[in-house]
Amino acid sequence: MAQEKKAPTLAIVGATGAVGTVMIDIINHRESVPWGEIRLIASARSAGKKITVRGQERTVVELAPEAFDGVDIALFDVPDEISAQWAPVAAERGAIAVDNSGAFRMDPEVPLVVPEVNADKVHERPKGIIANPNCTTLSMMAALGALHHDFGLRELVVSSYQAASGAGQEGIDRLQAEIAAVAGKGVGSRAGDVAEALAAAGLPEETPFKAPLALNVVPWAGSRKDDGWTSEELKVRNESRKILGIPDLRVSATCVRVPVVTTHALAVHATFEREVTVEQAHRVFEAQPTVVLRDDHDKGVFPTPAGVVGTDPTYVGRVRQALDFPNTLDFFVCGDNLRKGAALNTYEIAETLAK
Amino acid sequence: MAQEKKAPTLAIVGATGAVGTVMIDIINHRESVPWGEIRLIASARSAGKKITVRGQERTVVELAPEAFDGVDIALFDVPDEISAQWAPVAAERGAIAVDNSGAFRMDPEVPLVVPEVNADKVHERPKGIIANPNCTTLSMMAALGALHHDFGLRELVVSSYQAASGAGQEGIDRLQAEIAAVAGKGVGSRAGDVAEALAAAGLPEETPFKAPLALNVVPWAGSRKDDGWTSEELKVRNESRKILGIPDLRVSATCVRVPVVTTHALAVHATFEREVTVEQAHRVFEAQPTVVLRDDHDKGVFPTPAGVVGTDPTYVGRVRQALDFPNTLDFFVCGDNLRKGAALNTYEIAETLAK
Repeated sequence: MAQEKKAPTLAIVGATGAVGTVMIDIINHRESVPWGEIRLIASARSAGKKITVRGQERTVVELAPEAFDGVDIALFDVPDEISAQWAPVAAERGAIAVDNSGAFRMDPEVPLVVPEVNADKVHERPKGIIANPNCTTLSMMAALGALHHDFGLRELVVSSYQAASGAGQEGIDRLQAEIAAVAGKGVGSRAGDVAEALAAAGLPEETPFKAPLALNVVPWAGSRKDDGWTSEELKVRNESRKILGIPDLRVSATCVRVPVVTTHALAVHATFEREVTVEQAHRVFEAQPTVVLRDDHDKGVFPTPAGVVGTDPTYVGRVRQALDFPNTLDFFVCGDNLRKGAALNTYEIAETLAK
Repeated sequence: MAQEKKAPTLAIVGATGAVGTVMIDIINHRESVPWGEIRLIASARSAGKKITVRGQERTVVELAPEAFDGVDIALFDVPDEISAQWAPVAAERGAIAVDNSGAFRMDPEVPLVVPEVNADKVHERPKGIIANPNCTTLSMMAALGALHHDFGLRELVVSSYQAASGAGQEGIDRLQAEIAAVAGKGVGSRAGDVAEALAAAGLPEETPFKAPLALNVVPWAGSRKDDGWTSEELKVRNESRKILGIPDLRVSATCVRVPVVTTHALAVHATFEREVTVEQAHRVFEAQPTVVLRDDHDKGVFPTPAGVVGTDPTYVGRVRQALDFPNTLDFFVCGDNLRKGAALNTYEIAETLAK
C-alpha cells in the first residue's frame, strides 16, 4: 500500500453495449471524475475497438481474469449469465464489482443500492459485489424513498408504461422499424391490421415484445414466473422491499410495454403509515436534489417520457391525495431507464464508493 | 295504442360522427333488428347526406324538435351540451333518450346502464333519459360486474392505457399524423426531439392531447377537476360506483393516453369481500358471454388493444392473485372504446328496451 493515495482505476464491463455507451456518455459529461485509469472491457467481438473517454482514446480489452488486475471498481453492464460468471472473478482479483444485471440483486450478501435511499449499504459487501436495481424499480425509487423517509411506506400498487429500450438496442431498433412500417397506413382500427402491416413490411415475426408494439401496448415484460407473474413484476416487488428496507411491504405491479423509445413511466398508488397531503409531498420532492417536480394542475403541467428522456432526474407529477384511501397518494413518475434506471445509478454507486 | 304491436322507431342523433358511424356499422352487422323505421339525425351541416342502413338508403335529417315525432328510442352520440339541450326535447316528444354524453350520467333521476350488470335499471327513468357510461369505465365493467356479483367488490385501483380515438376522429387523425412525422427519424432518445419532429413536419402545436402522443404517453385525459384530478379519473370512480350500485366503493384511477388508435386497456387491482382465486375468476369470465378470456401464462397469451380492436367483447388476461393483498386480483382488460365503450353499449341498451 503506497503512502500517497492513488486515484482509483475504474473498469466498465460491457462498454460497447446500450447501457455501457450511456455510461461513457455520463463519464464524458461529468464536471470531474475521481478516476485514474478508466479501462473498457467487452467481449472478444468488440475487443480492439477505440472509444474516446474524457478526451482520451482508449482501446477496448477482452473480458478475461487478468483484465481486472489493478482495477478498484468494475461496473458490469452485461447479461445475467455473464455477470454471474465474471463479477466474482473481478471481486477475487480485488475489485469491487457493481453489477447492473439481475444475477445478484436478491442475494442476501449483496447490497442493492440507490444512493439517494441507502448509500450506507455500499460498505456491507461480503462478496465484493454491489447490485444495481432493475430499471423499472429504479425509475420510482428516488421519489418513493424520499416519501418513505418522511411518511413510512406500507403499500404500493404500480402500473408501468415501459419503454422499448428496456429490451436493449434490439428493442429500440424493433420499435423504430415497426413505427416506420405502420406510418401512413391508417391501421389500428381492425383486429390484427397492425400485425399485418408489420408482416407486409417484411419485419420478422419474432420480436422482443411478444406482440406488435407500434400502435399497441403489451402487458408483458421480462420472463414467465409462477402464478401468472412476470419477472419484471416480481422485481418491482422484491427489489422495492430490499432497497427501502421494508421486508413486509405490500406490492402489486402490472408491467406493460408501451411504444416509447426510452424512459419508463409508472402510475403509483402509495399508502403510508401517516397522512400525507399533496403540499407535503411536493415539499419532499422539491427537497430531493435528484427529483424534479413537474406538477402544475391548473396549467396542465406534468412529465412525459418524450419530454424528459436523455436527462438524469426522476420526474414526478399528477400528485393527488386518494379520495377513498386513507394516507394514500396517487402520482405519475418518469425516469430515463438507460440513465437513472441503469448506467447513471451504477455510476453513482461507484462515485459513492470513491468518496 | 294500436292492438297490433308496431315495430319501434329508432333514431340515431349524431349519425355522421365517429361513434354514430360505428353505431350504423353495428346495426348493419346485426343478424336481425327489432326496429321499424331507423331515422338518422345530425346537425344542419350533415343533413341531406345519404347513408345506407341495412340495405336501405336513408337521408340524414336535421336536428329539430319535430325530428323526434314518432320516435320510440333516440340514441344520442353528440357532445355534452347538445345532449343537455336535446335529450329532454326527445323525451318530451315521447321518445326514450339513450345518451352517450356526460350530460346526465350522474343525475340521480337518470339510470346509468351496462346491460350485463344492471339491465333492470332501464325501467327506472323518470326523465325519459338513460345514460351510457364513459368509455374508460365501460371497458372494464362487464368483467368487473361479473366478479362483483360473485365476490363483492370493495376497492379498485386502476391505471388506464387510453386510445387516441377517445378524443374522437380528431384524435385519430392527430395520432396518425404524428406517427407519420416521427417515422424513420430515429427520435425518442433526447428530451423534446419528438416535439421537434412534429413541428418540423408542420403539425400544429395545438393538439387534443396536451403533449406529443407518438413515441410517448400522456398522463392526462379529459378536463381539469379539483384537487389534481382529471374529469376522466373522477368518471371512472363515480360511474363505477353508480353502475355497480356500490355507493362507497373505494376507487383511485390514473388515466393515461397512449399512442394506440382505438381500444382502451386498463390495469386493474380489485379487492373483494371474499377470497377469489385465479381459477374462480377464470370461471366467472368464461361464464360471461360478452367477456373473452385470453389468459394462458405458459404460452404468453394475453389481450392487446391492436389484437382486439374493432370487435365487441371485453377481453381479460394476466389474471393474478395479489401476493400481498388479501382477496385481491390484478388483471389487464381491453375493450374497443368506440364499440363496447360507446356505440355498442348504447345500442344494447336500446335492444334491452325493445325486448
